[in-house]
Amino acid sequence: MQDAFLIGLDFGSESARGVLIDARDGRQRAYHVHPYRHGTMTQALPGGRPTPAGFALQDAADYLEAAEAILKSIGDGRDIAGIGVGFTASSPLPALADGRSLSEFMPNEPHAYVKLWKHAGAQPYADAINRGGGTFLKNFGGRISGEWLLAKAAQIAAEAPDVWRRTERFIEGGDWLVWRLTGCEARSLDFAAYKAQWAAGAGYPAHVVEGLNARLAPPLPVGSPAGTLTDEWRKRTGIRGAAVVAVAVIDSHVALPAVGAHAPGVLVGALGTSAAYLVLDDGDRPMPQGAEGRAYGAALPGLWLYEAGQPAFGDVLAWFARTFPRYESLDENFAFYNRQAMALRPGQNRLVAIDWWNGNRVPYADKSLRGLIAGFDLSTSAIDIYRALMDSLCFGALSIVDSFRQSRVPIERIVLTSGLAKSNPFLLQLMADVIGQAAHMPKIDNPTCVGAAIHGAIAAGVAPNFQAGAERFGASAFDVYRPDPARAAAFRSLYRQYRSLSGDETVRSAARNLG
Amino acid sequence: MQDAFLIGLDFGSESARGVLIDARDGRQRAYHVHPYRHGTMTQALPGGRPTPAGFALQDAADYLEAAEAILKSIGDGRDIAGIGVGFTASSPLPALADGRSLSEFMPNEPHAYVKLWKHAGAQPYADAINRGGGTFLKNFGGRISGEWLLAKAAQIAAEAPDVWRRTERFIEGGDWLVWRLTGCEARSLDFAAYKAQWAAGAGYPAHVVEGLNARLAPPLPVGSPAGTLTDEWRKRTGIRGAAVVAVAVIDSHVALPAVGAHAPGVLVGALGTSAAYLVLDDGDRPMPQGAEGRAYGAALPGLWLYEAGQPAFGDVLAWFARTFPRYESLDENFAFYNRQAMALRPGQNRLVAIDWWNGNRVPYADKSLRGLIAGFDLSTSAIDIYRALMDSLCFGALSIVDSFRQSRVPIERIVLTSGLAKSNPFLLQLMADVIGQAAHMPKIDNPTCVGAAIHGAIAAGVAPNFQAGAERFGASAFDVYRPDPARAAAFRSLYRQYRSLSGDETVRSAARNLG
Repeated sequence: MQDAFLIGLDFGSESARGVLIDARDGRQRAYHVHPYRHGTMTQALPGGRPTPAGFALQDAADYLEAAEAILKSIGDGRDIAGIGVGFTASSPLPALADGRSLSEFMPNEPHAYVKLWKHAGAQPYADAINRGGGTFLKNFGGRISGEWLLAKAAQIAAEAPDVWRRTERFIEGGDWLVWRLTGCEARSLDFAAYKAQWAAGAGYPAHVVEGLNARLAPPLPVGSPAGTLTDEWRKRTGIRGAAVVAVAVIDSHVALPAVGAHAPGVLVGALGTSAAYLVLDDGDRPMPQGAEGRAYGAALPGLWLYEAGQPAFGDVLAWFARTFPRYESLDENFAFYNRQAMALRPGQNRLVAIDWWNGNRVPYADKSLRGLIAGFDLSTSAIDIYRALMDSLCFGALSIVDSFRQSRVPIERIVLTSGLAKSNPFLLQLMADVIGQAAHMPKIDNPTCVGAAIHGAIAAGVAPNFQAGAERFGASAFDVYRPDPARAAAFRSLYRQYRSLSGDETVRSAARNLG
Repeated sequence: MQDAFLIGLDFGSESARGVLIDARDGRQRAYHVHPYRHGTMTQALPGGRPTPAGFALQDAADYLEAAEAILKSIGDGRDIAGIGVGFTASSPLPALADGRSLSEFMPNEPHAYVKLWKHAGAQPYADAINRGGGTFLKNFGGRISGEWLLAKAAQIAAEAPDVWRRTERFIEGGDWLVWRLTGCEARSLDFAAYKAQWAAGAGYPAHVVEGLNARLAPPLPVGSPAGTLTDEWRKRTGIRGAAVVAVAVIDSHVALPAVGAHAPGVLVGALGTSAAYLVLDDGDRPMPQGAEGRAYGAALPGLWLYEAGQPAFGDVLAWFARTFPRYESLDENFAFYNRQAMALRPGQNRLVAIDWWNGNRVPYADKSLRGLIAGFDLSTSAIDIYRALMDSLCFGALSIVDSFRQSRVPIERIVLTSGLAKSNPFLLQLMADVIGQAAHMPKIDNPTCVGAAIHGAIAAGVAPNFQAGAERFGASAFDVYRPDPARAAAFRSLYRQYRSLSGDETVRSAARNLG
């Protein structure tokens, strides 16, 4: 194991990046990022042909180009024990049985390309599938999203039957990349469970699209080895060693072991423009109201992982700073408003806001809901309003925690990650005060890549399990924000106002009718 | 009647003004304004003695000084047929039996001065009187205000028994001025009914303050002659002619005949920082919910006059322009926001606001209520919000109209007056569109003074009644804002949202608990 390294790859929406980790001490030794040549195609295909409205496509060839650039940059001449891959999802593409993307052969056909997760064209097919119902929907709040694989397969079958006919494999981009790196089609249980509603025993709900089952394959658990890097790739990148490639993982899940989340009772919140929450549990409980999906053993072995979220988070504060600027730059406005808002005691602004600027997921799962601010008087200031918005984001987070608690899913540790968490420590303190529980911010760079590398370590046998992998390669230090008892008590009464307003059908129906 | 003139006086909160009107053609020939030497005393008496917190006092001597300056300026050498007086109310003072103000003799005693309408110190006495109940409250929504005469009398009797003992007459400033001008103590039914709850048959509710009845006098109907200008005043001002002085009138009521409001079915809205509405009716109907008071024959003979209002009106728009400025001056900000808001179609902002920035009077009579805005999304603009506030002010006005309609008080003609109505024609168009009825803005200068002059004309016999007085001396032209059927229809649906939110107990209780 001397001189061995791990590589973690993170394939995002606009670029891919990778880190090289020293397997002896867990230190990050190299980092490289490579943008996709064609980015996200919403207007035209590489050859210039316009794409239909609502389409968001990628060219699978760009993934190979990025993988080669990254692996060569950070791996050339290194002894690589394992490689892990985090990937956006659901971003499926049609391929031939030998693994080549259909877009190689039909470059002017939009449906031959990768449909990126945010591709919106398939929503009507999701709606139709949901109307049909079925037990495969029960872990997903009764409905799949138009962003998921089943809907995208249905769209191709309906709108481009010729493409569907030539499609021999319909496969997530992450699985496809692993296939190309190793020569082995090894599907990930994580993609299969969350994006194609595969379940142990039942398999895929293949009846929803004719011919779907023949184009898929049974999945492997995460941490499984898919294969080793092919000779062709070794030649192109200079990588040496075993180079075991793990099955791919959804990018938002892959970071979990890197931020110390590998045991039941942990909630991980990724606070960005929106907020995504992952909750780990070891029991089979009722589905919490408004949770978007859950699967067992798919993101991490032996654990349920629930997904939930706030559709607008940092976006709400950015909206205010943009709508009511005091300074030229958005950064200056944020700095001004954040600094001023800190000076207010809980409730001093005598306002309460509901954070539904982009709809609500938990508990109402209603995109048409809209935001609200109550309590204005003639002395209300801009700072008062900004602070009410900050509070409301925390109340929304607490609603999610409450929804899990009502289903008896324990929330024993709260981990908050992402850029917003780093740039706005006051918001983390507010989260701790409002939720009434300590918030832990991992001190780690590139957690998604590190998490992918931990998957590679497990696939390669460098670490025996995720707990050991997390301890050796994940975050070892956390900034801890502890709730202040007095502020926490004050927020409890404000939160009752928030819940009473957001629980009121008249308020919700007004918000819906306006939207 | 050749060469005869009328004088209308308007005694406001900071100054008094008068107009000279040619009785032949109704034209305004002279105008003069005179500020009160001591203004409103909230900090100290003229001699320097500090006033208690919440006190708002005036020096009655200032009224005489202002009256002399105005009458001399516009009346010297003129043949004056009649003089009318509009005055703030309730602004009572303690006086001796010969008409001299007690403050002449007790200059260092705060309770010896005029308690201006907005004097806040008497509210606890109003609360106590209201707890006692009584049939005299039935036309006032079950409660008198701390701004009214009964509460102010109770305050003196309780807090300054020595002053109360020396008080031989307790009298409204307007009645006192008429007494000093004519030598005749002629109380106005308008003040007596609205501010001292006098009613035909029942008289004053004198039991609420010991010794009150002996310090009051039965009132005369408005339009009655109180007497003629004394020789002393003729000498000081150079006024000639009959100079019959009419009994005084509440300033907000006196303008009615000047703006064409002298018949049942008329609603007059005075849109300023707050909005005050007067409704004329000829039937005895149930008291509309949230209306503040009504009396029969007190403001105009033979008619009921109801009072209602919105505690914040222009103040709400000024709050927004001050809180979210784009330009240096408030005027520039108003101009910017008004111009931009005009461009929006009804409902285009997908917001609805509730106009309770300073509580609500109709229908909830609840000072603790607070404002609300619902419907925010990430595309909501500052203009969208400003426009929602404008809409909400009109919805609040329509709520008042609805409250009257529910009591079967017909609203056949809507007259809107005051500075805000002149400076913001778009707001008048919105009022017409939202209420679904034409809004008439009288084209007349100094309507309060002109209305007072009409009272003088009636007292002097120059006009036989208010209708004739209004036709000869009141506004002869109106700007008419007619509702646009399409916009009116769109607003009906928005108004349903406004009513459903404002009618929701959860919303109101949240607003109350925050305040």
